Amino acid sequence: MKKKRNVKEMVEKLLAGDRRTAARLITLVENEMEEQHEVMKEIYPHTGQAMILGITGAGGAGKSTLTDHLIKNFREQGKTVGVAVVDPSSPFSGGAFLGDRIRLQKHFLDDGVYIRSMASRGHLGGLSRATYDVIRIMEAMGMDVVIVETLGAGQDEIDIIHIANTCLLVATPGMGDDIQAMKAGIMEIADIIVLNKADLDGADKSLRHLQGALSIVCPEEGKWMPKIVPTVSVASKPVDLKGIDELVAAISEHQEYLQESRAIDQVKFERTEQELGLIFKDELQKLIFKGLRGTGKKRKYINSIIEGRDDPYSVVEEVLEKYLVTK
Amino acid sequence: MKKKRNVKEMVEKLLAGDRRTAARLITLVENEMEEQHEVMKEIYPHTGQAMILGITGAGGAGKSTLTDHLIKNFREQGKTVGVAVVDPSSPFSGGAFLGDRIRLQKHFLDDGVYIRSMASRGHLGGLSRATYDVIRIMEAMGMDVVIVETLGAGQDEIDIIHIANTCLLVATPGMGDDIQAMKAGIMEIADIIVLNKADLDGADKSLRHLQGALSIVCPEEGKWMPKIVPTVSVASKPVDLKGIDELVAAISEHQEYLQESRAIDQVKFERTEQELGLIFKDELQKLIFKGLRGTGKKRKYINSIIEGRDDPYSVVEEVLEKYLVTK
Repeated sequence: MKKKRNVKEMVEKLLAGDRRTAARLITLVENEMEEQHEVMKEIYPHTGQAMILGITGAGGAGKSTLTDHLIKNFREQGKTVGVAVVDPSSPFSGGAFLGDRIRLQKHFLDDGVYIRSMASRGHLGGLSRATYDVIRIMEAMGMDVVIVETLGAGQDEIDIIHIANTCLLVATPGMGDDIQAMKAGIMEIADIIVLNKADLDGADKSLRHLQGALSIVCPEEGKWMPKIVPTVSVASKPVDLKGIDELVAAISEHQEYLQESRAIDQVKFERTEQELGLIFKDELQKLIFKGLRGTGKKRKYINSIIEGRDDPYSVVEEVLEKYLVTK
Repeated sequence: MKKKRNVKEMVEKLLAGDRRTAARLITLVENEMEEQHEVMKEIYPHTGQAMILGITGAGGAGKSTLTDHLIKNFREQGKTVGVAVVDPSSPFSGGAFLGDRIRLQKHFLDDGVYIRSMASRGHLGGLSRATYDVIRIMEAMGMDVVIVETLGAGQDEIDIIHIANTCLLVATPGMGDDIQAMKAGIMEIADIIVLNKADLDGADKSLRHLQGALSIVCPEEGKWMPKIVPTVSVASKPVDLKGIDELVAAISEHQEYLQESRAIDQVKFERTEQELGLIFKDELQKLIFKGLRGTGKKRKYINSIIEGRDDPYSVVEEVLEKYLVTK
């Protein structure tokens, strides 16, 4: 670890599309090694061109199978595809992670596809920041499309989805009633709603619910109206897939809308604002931890709180005053 | 808003159990009004005595119905109960929020029960910090038990659960296979695993899976071994409930274990450490936002990134250097 890596050299290899270098750089930024900032600064000018596609939805909705088919479709168009799968480490998400990974594994031999799984925990910094860095690395290595797949629950994952140009919300029959009650939330996040497993009982009802929910919300003149695309993409019938062409067409349509309406400017602004905020948060935390580390000061503070001699708010004020001065 | 509230007076009313004051103080800390620190400093010495019970699990597992029955049981024991329900604002959690709220509403007339719903979004600070504050307020108003109910997905919610003395993970038949694959995660979070809806098909198989997963993990000598309690708590049969007495007994047993083994000291240490970290994070963010606000500086920085004249990492370094000095 001590051996100083040559950052510029590694980034050059990355830009040439070297996969092993990509893997090394991802490990480096995930673990927030000392070269992380230098790496990201070198990479940043080579990003911003890829189409970033967010895929989110509850566990079991079929996100992974859908990702699998989207990869196939984009590859047939001659596009290279990066995929960042955000795995919640939470033990009760209800998703079938192992199955998902196996499903995507067939793409591992394709040089035009680069897949990386990211665990929710174990990042020194935040998960969202780490995911942003990984997406940037995939952009820099030349991926035309970068897919980010998350379970979409919790603030971290909602933060992650904000990096996408186009966001797909994957729903399944039976979820319509809840979605009905939360129409504002849908409009906020989803550009396209995929009603997956549209062959199941209740699909018609769910479709009507979703359409009803959307019809109530009138976006401003000229703004994007979320589309609903029914698909049948079941793990047990991997070849028999309906609706994927329609979905790809809807994605293209949204991309065209972004460009033509100049809405892409707003998307880029918000995305940069978000990214900036995440980096700030991480860097500030590091600063404080540096101040508290090693000397047993932290333990002393905690014990004084437990023993009732102090409270956490006073401690934070004291430490901030001691270690930081605002100019 | 300008009118200076008399914090000491409000906290005195809170300590006397005044519910309207509790509601006002919760709104005050949730919105991070200027008195927030002062309020929390006054409240803190009056906390630390309640049993904090975390309830987590996937949407639809029956957390709310279980909470309902636990409230009833604790009330029969003469204990007062506070409940903080963390509502994910995510539109695709699959939970039936409205139904949950209606289910808990019958307790609203009971002076010994105080329920507060918290949305995942819309907090200036983090959700976890706001939830911690709300739990403290419920402790200070004299609640013997404080239940925190979360969906348990995402880092924020995992952070929240860390405040609990005893944590229940609610699973349902059919989830066993996934849980099997992630035994480490279970052991980390759950003290008691509730296999709810244990009358459904596949319950026996799930129970065996859970037992199998737990049997592989051998906690250190003298450490708590997570218990599995099957319950049948279905919204449509609110009176017919099996297993709730066994669950309450398991909770008591875990509480006794914490006291007798002195493991409670470690729990308190970790909880305080966690709380301290969350407050730090929030306060640091506020400091930076204060530095950037109002002058259009933030917009300038973002535009320079979008136009490729700068990258977010360099901007963060520049701002930190400009507005903060570490002593």
